[in-house]
Amino acid sequence: MSIYGDYIKSVIRTVPDWPEQGVNFRDITPLLQNSAAFRKLIDSFVHRYQEMNLDAIASIDARGFIIGAPLAYELGCSFVPVRKKGKLPFKTISETYTLEYGHSEVELHSDAFQKDDRILLMDDLIATGGTMLAAANLIQRSGGHVVETATIIDLPELGGSQKIRDAGYSVFAVCSFTEDE
Amino acid sequence: MSIYGDYIKSVIRTVPDWPEQGVNFRDITPLLQNSAAFRKLIDSFVHRYQEMNLDAIASIDARGFIIGAPLAYELGCSFVPVRKKGKLPFKTISETYTLEYGHSEVELHSDAFQKDDRILLMDDLIATGGTMLAAANLIQRSGGHVVETATIIDLPELGGSQKIRDAGYSVFAVCSFTEDE
Repeated sequence: MSIYGDYIKSVIRTVPDWPEQGVNFRDITPLLQNSAAFRKLIDSFVHRYQEMNLDAIASIDARGFIIGAPLAYELGCSFVPVRKKGKLPFKTISETYTLEYGHSEVELHSDAFQKDDRILLMDDLIATGGTMLAAANLIQRSGGHVVETATIIDLPELGGSQKIRDAGYSVFAVCSFTEDE
Repeated sequence: MSIYGDYIKSVIRTVPDWPEQGVNFRDITPLLQNSAAFRKLIDSFVHRYQEMNLDAIASIDARGFIIGAPLAYELGCSFVPVRKKGKLPFKTISETYTLEYGHSEVELHSDAFQKDDRILLMDDLIATGGTMLAAANLIQRSGGHVVETATIIDLPELGGSQKIRDAGYSVFAVCSFTEDE
């Protein structure tokens, strides 16, 4: 957890029964709207990654862009979007992954990285971890090296962060929520 | 145009016939991947807006987030996402607009701003201008004041930036492309 983890957690809003009955949605928009908190959020990542010689920040569409782009700006790294299938023009490579019902696919430009580039992969939240894991595998396949996966919120009871660690990637979360919080 | 306009334009890639035959897609991913160019892009906005006492940067999902979030971080402003219908939890207001075939809808949290907050609205590109204009109207309806709309790329021949100006909003573009470029 980050040094600002408790503070940042305190400005995240829980919206009950969204997008469906029984789900507690963790809404980061109050955190983004609070300029001091948003600054501390990005600085949590700056503090962790400033000495890690990253080449690029890859971020998952769309909320991942909100944390990845400021970090890329501040650290002087490349910014690389990982998007849902069909959103990127030019030559792409993609990775399919399984959801509870059906499957989904993430896509990356095939010229997004140089071989062995050191890459941080970011998304706003890790739940079941399927998207983050597929994106990490896609980056490795494309020749990049995933130094870590990073998120604002981990929901450890859903098992995603453990699944990503079991696949050999490091995981950093600014804060975490249990289901009854 | 920004002082870096020509340089930034030179690192934007034109992808012919995407997403459909006859369309020249202006692809900003090479600009984002070039860390020096990405830095200059964001600094173009910092330079223009640092003395304008902005309260919030509102950005349109998803590429708008890539420029709006670093600017909010650097200027110490709030960051407010404007999203497609159904993506935001909690109480929202929305604005419908007409496309060539059918219509679309943008949405904003109803508590996103304080009354009279000074807001910059950003998206990566202005083509026909429908999304940007609908988002600007939505912000004004929600009590905010749209100081300017800003974009990386304007396509003036499609008439969008003129339509936004005709509606009473200021428009700033880092660079522009004509159809034959």
